[in-house]
This record gives sequence, structure tokens and C-alpha cells, in this order.
Amino acid sequence: MNTAQAQLGGVLAAGGPELTRLLERTERRLSEVAAAGGPELGGHATATLSAGGKRLRPILVFLCANGDSDDRLVAAAVAVELLHMATLVHDDVLDGAALRRGRPTVFAEGGRLAATATGDLLFSRAFAELAAAGSEDAVRALSAASSALARGELMQRADAWSPDVTPERYVERCRLKTASLFDASCRLGAVFGGRPALATPLGRFGERIGLAFQMLDDVLDVVGPAERTGKPRGADLLDGTVTLPLILARRHDEVLLDLDPPLDAERAAELCHRIAATGALDKARDQALTHVAEAKRSLDDLDLPEPRRRALDLVGDGVVARYA
Amino acid sequence: MNTAQAQLGGVLAAGGPELTRLLERTERRLSEVAAAGGPELGGHATATLSAGGKRLRPILVFLCANGDSDDRLVAAAVAVELLHMATLVHDDVLDGAALRRGRPTVFAEGGRLAATATGDLLFSRAFAELAAAGSEDAVRALSAASSALARGELMQRADAWSPDVTPERYVERCRLKTASLFDASCRLGAVFGGRPALATPLGRFGERIGLAFQMLDDVLDVVGPAERTGKPRGADLLDGTVTLPLILARRHDEVLLDLDPPLDAERAAELCHRIAATGALDKARDQALTHVAEAKRSLDDLDLPEPRRRALDLVGDGVVARYA
Repeated sequence: MNTAQAQLGGVLAAGGPELTRLLERTERRLSEVAAAGGPELGGHATATLSAGGKRLRPILVFLCANGDSDDRLVAAAVAVELLHMATLVHDDVLDGAALRRGRPTVFAEGGRLAATATGDLLFSRAFAELAAAGSEDAVRALSAASSALARGELMQRADAWSPDVTPERYVERCRLKTASLFDASCRLGAVFGGRPALATPLGRFGERIGLAFQMLDDVLDVVGPAERTGKPRGADLLDGTVTLPLILARRHDEVLLDLDPPLDAERAAELCHRIAATGALDKARDQALTHVAEAKRSLDDLDLPEPRRRALDLVGDGVVARYA
Repeated sequence: MNTAQAQLGGVLAAGGPELTRLLERTERRLSEVAAAGGPELGGHATATLSAGGKRLRPILVFLCANGDSDDRLVAAAVAVELLHMATLVHDDVLDGAALRRGRPTVFAEGGRLAATATGDLLFSRAFAELAAAGSEDAVRALSAASSALARGELMQRADAWSPDVTPERYVERCRLKTASLFDASCRLGAVFGGRPALATPLGRFGERIGLAFQMLDDVLDVVGPAERTGKPRGADLLDGTVTLPLILARRHDEVLLDLDPPLDAERAAELCHRIAATGALDKARDQALTHVAEAKRSLDDLDLPEPRRRALDLVGDGVVARYA
């Protein structure tokens, strides 16, 4: 068990047996939904879902609720996870990725068409699932997150290889492509979980956690090693994706301003060293930790039972632990 | 004005000024939704929507309603058209298509990422729009159609270049990739338009019209010419897509059983001649016409006001007129 998994175990302990039960129901429902996609598509969708993942977004849904079990909460948890999986499947198509979490991607196994269709299917099912919860606001929240994810992906590609990406633009991109779904997860949990008055502050908590999650992911990409991240060190550089460590390092090392495709793995590793040498990794990590600290502090103002508060704190710690 | 446009004019006349007003509202809302996608994505989405199209699915929504104006009907019409556009944008990515309706595709203008993200955005917006109508059943109906479209696309690709595709499997594919959204359009119109008891029979009407639409599209692909279809003659053959004319012609010409990629345009044109020589085009067209005739006849059993009945008949005739 690695540090992040241990931390997740802490979250589960703090969330109590009800959280575990809700997550089990979520897994079962995810399997049912994937299997309903017909023989070809269902196989791909099932493989995608069973490849696992931390189910961080469903956990946020449940932890932002008041602890009572409710079918609508499970529907919301399933919906946010399906939407997350849909974007991963489409991202793998765009990146031509062969592996994710150590398993072949749908793109690698079934090709571009199967992967695009699988992503579309997962999108459709996400909305159908949430519709069953019978809340127009909820479907709108998911749709807003879904649009944000698409816009974030596009922004990332528009900024590829650019020497001019500002930290502010980078943060906006993280907000769109990652934090928006964390935000929606928390909001849905609050709305369906008997805490509608806390939807906005809990959404903001989720957004900050999501920002930190993406920032630390981007730091890890430069730090490596591949055994730990599941992708080659400097994968973002190879891809032209301009992340915070590179943006900050460029202020101190002009060589980093002038990157052009194609890079090879050796050159990418060398650039990772140069980025690290400027101290940019610590600065980027500090920004992420600040977001986590502020997210946790923001919970002080909310009227949450102590075990719930502790579990949400542990989610924040878990995001940081992935880095440690 | 070509025959199909003239026929559509007949539909609009039969639908009365209220239909025209509803379609105008639909256009305005489609523009608003596209523009809300942010600068990069909004541009692509707006270009896609303003490239036009027959708006056949919105017309079906309105004609299956009782004629009273209702915001939910416009929401449903916008949703089905957005879903249709989303699949076209993704199809163009998969086909590497440069042109659609004589204009550059999003894929050609913005590349694979922009087009995939634009499709995802249009998907998201479709569900958001329908959610605003506040009906769980409606979102489920759209989701079912959306899943069917994805499954149909996958089935088409799985059957590519296959010598074994049966007419039954072909019809099932048409049902999934085309007729399901016609079906959903009619159902949504009936449900939101004060005719919930007619949702199933009107959905079945839409399904038959959709089947005929796809079948005639596939016949036209073999007939050509490019000036009329907007794509090279035999585009399906070049793509490996096995359609009804080819399936039927294979019973009479063994050369057609053994197709392998890549084909060039000259060979595709020659194969189109061989298919036509077997009489398969007439047989395929007859099957489509039978579906239209049965669709129209099925309306006899429904209690519809005469102008509505006439307008729905004209939609069926319009689908046939594309072929004439």
C-alpha cells in the first residue's frame, strides 16, 4: 500500500461503514451501467471502469452529504465517475495513449472509433444516471462541469508549446479541466445529501482540492519516476503541455523558453532536471499546498459534524500524499 | 430550390405559422448555446450550427406536439439537434472528413482535439438543455438515443469490409445510428406537447422514417453524383461501410463479396456500377419506401388533427424526395 492509498484508508475509516457501503453500491452500479452498453461497447466500458481509480469524486459526493443513505447520492456519485471516465477515454484517443493505470487503453485495444464511441456512451450514461435523481439543477451542474472539461482540454491544446502561458492562465485551465468536476461532486453531495445551504462553500472546497490535485500531478510529471506516475518522466513536456513548474522555471532559465516539437525522452528528462534546478518544483508544490490548506481552513466556517470534517480534511491530505 | 427543400416548404406550410415561430426560436437558442462555449470552443460550435441542416429532428418534435407553444418543446428540439450535431462532429473526426455541407469541418479547421472537445461540448449542452425542461423521462429518452448512436457507430466500424453482414444486422445498425434519434424526437414532442398517450406510436413513426432516411442515404451514396450528395460517389465503399445495396447485390455478383482496403475512387465508381447492375438499388429503395408507407399508414390509428397528420405525411414524403 502506498502513502496515498493509506491516506484513502484513513478517509474510509473516518467516513464510517456507511461510506464504504455507498462506495460498494457505486461500484456495482458502475458495472451495471457499463455492461448495458451492448456487447462491443459494454466490453470496452467495463474494462475502463474495472481498471479502477481512486473514486475520489464519488467519495467527495458522499462526504459532502449529511450521512444519510439516499439513492440520489449514489446516482450522483456514479454520474461524476462516469463523466470522469468518459474524459479519460477521449483523452487517451487524443494522446494516442497505449496504457492507463498499467492496462491497455480502449484506444489501444479497440482503436480510435471504439474509444470515441465508448467515451460518448459513458457521457450519455452519466447524464441518464443523474436524470434518474430528478433534479434539473443537478443535471445543469454536471453539464456545466462537462462543458468546462471540454473547454479545459481545448485550452491546453491551444497553449501547447507556447512560451507565453501565464500562471493565471494555467490556473484557469486547471480549474476548467480538473477542479470543475471536484466542485460539482461536492455540490451534488450537498444538494442531495440534505445540506443545500452548504452547496457553494463545499463546492469551493472541492474546487481548491481539485486545483491542488492537478498542480501536484503536474509537479509529479517533472519529478518522476515512471514506476510511480505510470507514465514517462516529462510526459507533459513531450506533449507540449505547459504546466506550472515549467512556467515558473522559465523565469530563471531561458533555455526553457524555447521548446519545439518533437522532443525525445532523453531531452525531456534533461529539461526536467533543468526545471528542478531552478527550484520551481518547490514553488509549484507550495502553491498546491496553499490551496489544500485554504480548503481545509474554509471548513472551519461550516457547521459540519466532527467525523465528516475530519474525513474531508483527510481527502485534502490524501491529495498531498500522492506527492509525498 | 431542390425537391427536398420544396417538400420541406410544404411541411412548414402545413405546420402553420406556429411551427415557423418554434423553429425560429430553436435557431436562436442553438446560437446562444453554441456561443456560450467560450471563445475557442464557441467559435467551432457556432460554425457547426450555422452550417445549417434541415432541422428535421426539431421539426418532428414540434409536429408530434399538439400545437401549443411550450418552452419545453423548444428545449427538446434544441437538445435533439445538439446531440445530432455532436455525433456529426465526432464522425468527421473519425472519418478525417474535410468538408460537410460544403463547409470545412471542425476537424479540418481546428484539428482532432478541437473537434473532439466541440462534440463533447455539444453533448453536454444537449443534456443541460433538456434538463431545463424538468423531466427525468425526457433525459432518459435522450440518453438512450445517445447510447444507441454510439453503439451504432461502433457496429458500423466492427462490420467494416465484412462479407457477412446480413440485411437484419444492417437494419439494426440503421435503427441504432439514425432511427433512435428520430424516435426520441417524436417521443419528446408527444410527451411535452400534450400527447403523452401517443408517445410510443409516434416514436415508432419516427423510427420508421429514420430507417427510411438512412436507407435512402445509403442508396444515394451508390447512385451519386457528388454534386448532389456532397461526397464522392461510393464514399461508403471507400470507407468499408457495408450498406443494403451492397448486401443485396452480393447475392448476384460474387466480385462484390471480396472487397479489401484500400479502394481508390475509380474502383469505387466501378463497384457502384456493378451494384446498380444487379438491381439492388431498386430493391433497397423499395424497402425504404415501404417503411415510409407503413409509417404514414400507422398515423391512421392515431387521433391527430388533419393539418398535423398532413404535415407528418409530408415529412415522410420529404425523406423520399431527397432520393427523387
